[in-house]
Amino acid sequence: MKRTSLAHWPCSIARTMDLLGDWWTPLVLREAFYGVRRFDDFQHSLGLARNTLTVRLQRLVEEGLLERVPYQQRPERFEYVLTDKGRDFYPVLMALTAWGDRWLSGPQGPPVTLRHEECGHTTSAVVVCEHCGEPLKAGAVRGEMGPGFPERLAQRPDVRERFGARPDSA
Amino acid sequence: MKRTSLAHWPCSIARTMDLLGDWWTPLVLREAFYGVRRFDDFQHSLGLARNTLTVRLQRLVEEGLLERVPYQQRPERFEYVLTDKGRDFYPVLMALTAWGDRWLSGPQGPPVTLRHEECGHTTSAVVVCEHCGEPLKAGAVRGEMGPGFPERLAQRPDVRERFGARPDSA
Repeated sequence: MKRTSLAHWPCSIARTMDLLGDWWTPLVLREAFYGVRRFDDFQHSLGLARNTLTVRLQRLVEEGLLERVPYQQRPERFEYVLTDKGRDFYPVLMALTAWGDRWLSGPQGPPVTLRHEECGHTTSAVVVCEHCGEPLKAGAVRGEMGPGFPERLAQRPDVRERFGARPDSA
Repeated sequence: MKRTSLAHWPCSIARTMDLLGDWWTPLVLREAFYGVRRFDDFQHSLGLARNTLTVRLQRLVEEGLLERVPYQQRPERFEYVLTDKGRDFYPVLMALTAWGDRWLSGPQGPPVTLRHEECGHTTSAVVVCEHCGEPLKAGAVRGEMGPGFPERLAQRPDVRERFGARPDSA
């Protein structure tokens, strides 16, 4: 059951995947974005085992993506509400959806289309550079050691080959 | 070991997560984007068990994200090269990275920073509407039944409550 922890790798993809844990977690978040808040409603719409759902919700609460909020006193009942950190995950799901729509739809086309209510059009997500606004494509982005890169790894030849020297030591 | 298959759900997130399988798969893709092509190099940089890596690479080949290409005859040796479908996954990793950089970095900041070589600036991914170019935020996007939505589900009250009636039958 216990697996290698990727949480301490100097990589935001590894850390995020460590947090997600498995493929149920993004779907629990998807439901939360559709407005689902209660255990039984998550369970009904995803059809996953109650103990699996309990563990996933607990993880999302511990990690600060969902907050457990009481909505009834006797008996005490809780619902799960997205935090800022959780709501900020929405663009990741949109990027996943765009890829899945393009590559995993059958001949009929995507199962669900998305309407952007701010502009009124059917939309698909595009992942762009925050600076120039152009789509970020493979091969056009280079990783460099950031401020949180661990010093003990920074001198390793394979690390320097991948990222170059630290910009501040160049 | 075998789990519920999400591949046939009418949801591109579920289908994509089904394909990813677990948290190693995006990291195998990350390595491919860093230019890694050979089994031993994937194994060295990720440090995962050889049998786990074999299964992940095989899945990515079956699903058409990587192609297995011979690079040596005797003995025959193969390397794993990104296909168009695989390269198109890059924006998803960029969106994951941006979220992880914002929410999972320690006080020092992100481990790796990204330079967009086309504009020369340090960048972070923004997920925008393909139509109006504005960031796609939670609450501003509504799902509607798309052309590939299964007819057998389209009349269910919970489905109609979530997505409304089919646009073409409205």
